[in-house]
Formats: sequence, structure tokens, C-alpha cells
Amino acid sequence: MCQLLGMNCNVPTDIVFSFTGFATRGGQTDHHSDGWGIAFFEGSGVRHFVDYQAAIASPVAELIRRCPIKSKNVIAHIRKATQGQVALENCHPFVRELWGRYWVFAHNGDLKEFAPRLNGPYRPVGNTDSELAFCYLLQQLRQRFGDSAPSQAELTAALRELTSEIAAHGTFNMMLSDGSALFTHCSTNLYYIVRQFPFAEAHLSDEDVSVDFSQVTTPQDRVAVIVTEPLTTNEVWTKFGEGELIVFVDGQPV
Amino acid sequence: MCQLLGMNCNVPTDIVFSFTGFATRGGQTDHHSDGWGIAFFEGSGVRHFVDYQAAIASPVAELIRRCPIKSKNVIAHIRKATQGQVALENCHPFVRELWGRYWVFAHNGDLKEFAPRLNGPYRPVGNTDSELAFCYLLQQLRQRFGDSAPSQAELTAALRELTSEIAAHGTFNMMLSDGSALFTHCSTNLYYIVRQFPFAEAHLSDEDVSVDFSQVTTPQDRVAVIVTEPLTTNEVWTKFGEGELIVFVDGQPV
Repeated sequence: MCQLLGMNCNVPTDIVFSFTGFATRGGQTDHHSDGWGIAFFEGSGVRHFVDYQAAIASPVAELIRRCPIKSKNVIAHIRKATQGQVALENCHPFVRELWGRYWVFAHNGDLKEFAPRLNGPYRPVGNTDSELAFCYLLQQLRQRFGDSAPSQAELTAALRELTSEIAAHGTFNMMLSDGSALFTHCSTNLYYIVRQFPFAEAHLSDEDVSVDFSQVTTPQDRVAVIVTEPLTTNEVWTKFGEGELIVFVDGQPV
Repeated sequence: MCQLLGMNCNVPTDIVFSFTGFATRGGQTDHHSDGWGIAFFEGSGVRHFVDYQAAIASPVAELIRRCPIKSKNVIAHIRKATQGQVALENCHPFVRELWGRYWVFAHNGDLKEFAPRLNGPYRPVGNTDSELAFCYLLQQLRQRFGDSAPSQAELTAALRELTSEIAAHGTFNMMLSDGSALFTHCSTNLYYIVRQFPFAEAHLSDEDVSVDFSQVTTPQDRVAVIVTEPLTTNEVWTKFGEGELIVFVDGQPV
């Protein structure tokens, strides 16, 4: 099984603390060593890093730990190959453009007998069920709403239907963002936490690292972190329900 | 004016030497300091790095100089903003997917009164004339060839028409790759060199750095480097003709 990490905030925030614990799972405290990737929205642009080396050994992961990139929406993924070989084109997250915005997607789980007909402009480059699901999602959104982006409420309703349709084929824990919101769907394992004033100290479960968020935040900051397994030992994480879709905007579920 | 650098090879090759001289132009020997970017094909996957810091100061550029990435097709760009503000979404190269392949594009020059109607699935995320031209190119290719990729000869003929149509609006020095070939079009400034056996020493014009390629190659290697201004002082670069489109495959023009 792969691991997913998402972050959604009301002000651009760096993900160094969470990524430090998360990246350790790519080859050190866990066996997800078939590549990894991370995408940061910055305005409407995206910084996208993928690597098929284990996250623990990757020079790009090292760069991200050393050079904090501030973002309001981040999606990261560590891969344990189940479908599709170990190759750059199979590393999540995937990026495509729809309605003049970039969309970033990552998936945890396996889909069986999932072979939707792709008759639109989105085609997988690699051979994972995940990228296929992403292309199908975007195709269906474009088919439903045409050339103009719908409201967030309409989009959420459509994604609720589409994720549930895909999840009928297996496990579909997924994260999707267009830079304005983070859409998350849980089949089996997804947890979130909202950190806000008054901020406290957090201690990573994967590494002996703590951070006192009150020292690095302002009282207005709000950060939601969503992950397949809780990252810290001393905070209370909320587990998603099976089949639940939660949309995060400005650091909190809406 | 921006600067473009492309590389096309018959075996995966690192671009450290050329990139070292090229990146120096982003803020040190030249004034192209409004961002930069580089994309490497690896198989059908792409590593894509963009930054709106000057290339000379960017930690990502430093990573690329220190950690050689081997690729058969590379496109790099250093930006001097003429249209579109300094922002991540306006940094070249741009990446989109067509026919289940990634396409990478970068442009040098300005287009005037260029406002094609986009009625297909490709929309600019930023506000440069360059990304608009890229979206238009892909839309027209998809309109012409439908859902299946044409042969390279058909593709080349189509690109010859389309680039000439766009170039009528101004300066359109550009590089485009789908990972199998590097398509280059010159309006004003583009030069190339093919390095092959017997390899010799080359000396950068922007930095006091030399490399003896005979020490780092095999006799079978062949590398084409394409650039808006020659990178070395002791080699003979071939200047493109005005309006010329050259396709590079396996390290040589076809």
C-alpha cells in the first residue's frame, strides 16, 4: 500500500515537518520504496517533483526538507508498486490541466476491473490504475460541465458521485486539488487534523522530531493535514468514514 | 529576450556542462532573471522544474548542477518577462498531455495580435503569449489528427505549417518535445551543434569551465545541443535559417 499526505491552509505554509516524518516511510520506517512525489500549488502554478528512488535516498526529497516551499495546497505520495512498474511516469502525484487550472491527483489503493472508456482528451501516460482513474475523473468533469468551471458546490457533488463510482472497483483513498480546495476521498484509511490557535507542540511518530507550532505561526493561521496514517503521537487525528468525501478550504473541512 | 536550451541524444546524457553555462545567464552574465525552468524526459515520464528566482540563485538549479539527471530530451528556459508577470505559472517550459504522451514546450520571443480561438481542451493557466501558443499548437494537432498520434513525418509537416502561422505574429523561436524527438523552430536566433566521435574538449563562453567529452562518452554517443546563443567559444555552431524548423532525433537533425 502507498501512503498519501495532503495539506490545505489559509496562508502559504511549509510542509517540512510533516514531510520529514512522511518521507521516512519511503524506505526507512516502512517499505514504500518504489518512488515518491509531491506537488505544491503556488498561485495558479505548480511545483511538481517525482522520483523513482526511495524518498529517504532521493536528493530531491533532501532539497524539499532543506528549502521550505510555502503553499496553500500540497499533495504528496510514497509509492509501493502494485500496478504498473517502477518508472517515472507511474509516480504520483499526476498533473493535468482543466478549465485553465492545473489539477493534481494522488491515489492509495487498488482498483479491480476498472476499465472506463476514455473518449476525451485525457489519456494516461503510464500504466497505473491511478492515472487512469484521474483521467476518467477529469473527462467526466469536462463532459458534465463543459468548458466552464462549475461552482465549488456543484464540483463537490459531482466528485462525490464519481469517487463513489470508482471506489466500487476497490480501494480509492485519493486526494485531488485545483489549488483552491483539497478534495479527499476515503475508502479505507484517511485521517485529518486541523491545527489552529492556540498552537501546541507536535511530535512525529516516524522520527524523533518535535516542533512547537506556536513559535512558527500567527494566531490567524489554520492548517489541515490529511494522511493515510497519523504522523504524530501526541495529537488527536480524526478518521474519515468509509466512502466519505471531505473538501478542505482555507485549512478546514467545509 | 529569454534564452532557450535544448538537448537531444541517442543515449541518456546529463546536461550539467551546458546547463552550467546557460544558468549563468540567469542573473550573472546576462539579465534574464525573471525565472527559469527545465524539463527532462525519462522514458515517457517528465521531471519538470520551474522557479521564479533567478537561475543563478535558485536552490533547484543548484541541485541540477550537483545531481546529474540523464535524459535523451531536455528543454530549458531562462525568462526575461515581456508578457505576463513574474509568477510560477508563467515560467517555461510548459507541460501538457496529448495522445498519452507528455509534451514539453518553451518559447523565446514576443507575439503581437496573437489571439487564436481556443475551443478545445487546452487552456493557458498563466497569461503569457507563449503558453497560449503552446495550447493552440496542441489543439490544432489534436483537431488535425484526432485521437491517434500521426507518424513523425506527418507531425513534422503539420508543425511546419503551424509554427509558420504563429511566427507571422512576431518572434517564435521555440522548442517542443514529446520525448521521442525535439522539434525546434527559429524566427531569429537559434544555433545547434552535434557532438559525436571523435569527441574533443569544449570551453564555456559564460564561465571558465572546460570539459573533455572524450573522457565522458563512448564512441557511439551522439548529442545535439540547440541554443539561442552559442554556449562554447571553441566549437563551430550552425545557425538556423529564418523560419527554419529542424527535428532532432537520436542526437542529429533529420
